[in-house]
Amino acid sequence: KINVICPATEVHIRKYTKQEQVMVRETPELYETVVKPYIAAFPASRTKWVENILLGLSEQSKVLYSCTDFMVLPDMKWDLKTVSSLYLVALVQDRTIRSLRDLRKGHVGLLSSIRSEAERVVKEKWGLGRGALRMYVHYQPSYYHFHVHIVNGNYQGAMVGMSVGQAHLLDDIISLLELEGPSVFERMTLTYGLGDQHGLVDAMRRAGAL
Amino acid sequence: KINVICPATEVHIRKYTKQEQVMVRETPELYETVVKPYIAAFPASRTKWVENILLGLSEQSKVLYSCTDFMVLPDMKWDLKTVSSLYLVALVQDRTIRSLRDLRKGHVGLLSSIRSEAERVVKEKWGLGRGALRMYVHYQPSYYHFHVHIVNGNYQGAMVGMSVGQAHLLDDIISLLELEGPSVFERMTLTYGLGDQHGLVDAMRRAGAL
Repeated sequence: KINVICPATEVHIRKYTKQEQVMVRETPELYETVVKPYIAAFPASRTKWVENILLGLSEQSKVLYSCTDFMVLPDMKWDLKTVSSLYLVALVQDRTIRSLRDLRKGHVGLLSSIRSEAERVVKEKWGLGRGALRMYVHYQPSYYHFHVHIVNGNYQGAMVGMSVGQAHLLDDIISLLELEGPSVFERMTLTYGLGDQHGLVDAMRRAGAL
Repeated sequence: KINVICPATEVHIRKYTKQEQVMVRETPELYETVVKPYIAAFPASRTKWVENILLGLSEQSKVLYSCTDFMVLPDMKWDLKTVSSLYLVALVQDRTIRSLRDLRKGHVGLLSSIRSEAERVVKEKWGLGRGALRMYVHYQPSYYHFHVHIVNGNYQGAMVGMSVGQAHLLDDIISLLELEGPSVFERMTLTYGLGDQHGLVDAMRRAGAL
């Protein structure tokens, strides 16, 4: 199976170029001084495709579930047929959540709805029952508009994006937020792997984090 | 590369049999009523090989680092040569830590030492620098004697054991313990995948968790 990405931006090319991984420890201070400005610098055009979906301007025939808070649709990497590699994505409407770092206790309801609606849709449409899905969030993500990856729990291909140190289980996130008060992701040091072509690597190096 | 396990117990055979994965949500209550008795029922003979290493009775020529609290040595799955697939394991001496669930704030010092000594050993012996290692803990683990997996951060093979929902990054664990007080892993619902031949699946099913 070949994925064709056209037009491919420089970021796509970087993303799919074979890269060395470096593990970064992002303290709350590094988030404020390095990562937040990095995210803020992205032009809105970079997530125009997400906006178009959320505004109902594109991909609407693919949407599996939609409410005022989020949409669930197949990920472009899925062929829509092979249940063993089922891959959906949930896109949230709330533009103020740029990443995992912005999640607060008040988002537990939203995250729980994504979990239950995704389970319901997958059950109804593909017959997969309880415990069949692995749902996770990337940090760093490839685009800064909050979204959840929903994959068959049995998928065990060489999916780099499923690795500890990049993926955070939705269930664990919900449990942490419920448990620990409103600001766990604000206060926590997050450690993750970055390809050495990732736009953050230079800035992290300059900040002494690498 | 072929790993030969001899003698192979029933647990080894189960572990390496192709299994369906099920995702389980283990609440603190399920831990108390289902998982703790499951762990307690293991005969001591099952971790005799770990005891023998920790007591200095076997594998001592392989030990890369040893102190009163833990040892670092190559994992049996590593060929000891190919740096790109570097795989070490840290075994702790403290027998009261059976798994992630037993970690408390008081263990931060131990966990931080494992992190820094592993980094130092790998730097000295294989020249890998800062950010080169991905260290993680399994939950559920394959044996209930606390240990940390230390792998090359670039290793991207089809390592099921590196997936979110089974692996927990050592750095994130340390950050959570530092942040959240003594009992986060006692209070948190942990979600993870289990092969359907795993010994916990039936008990979880009987408890209504699946």
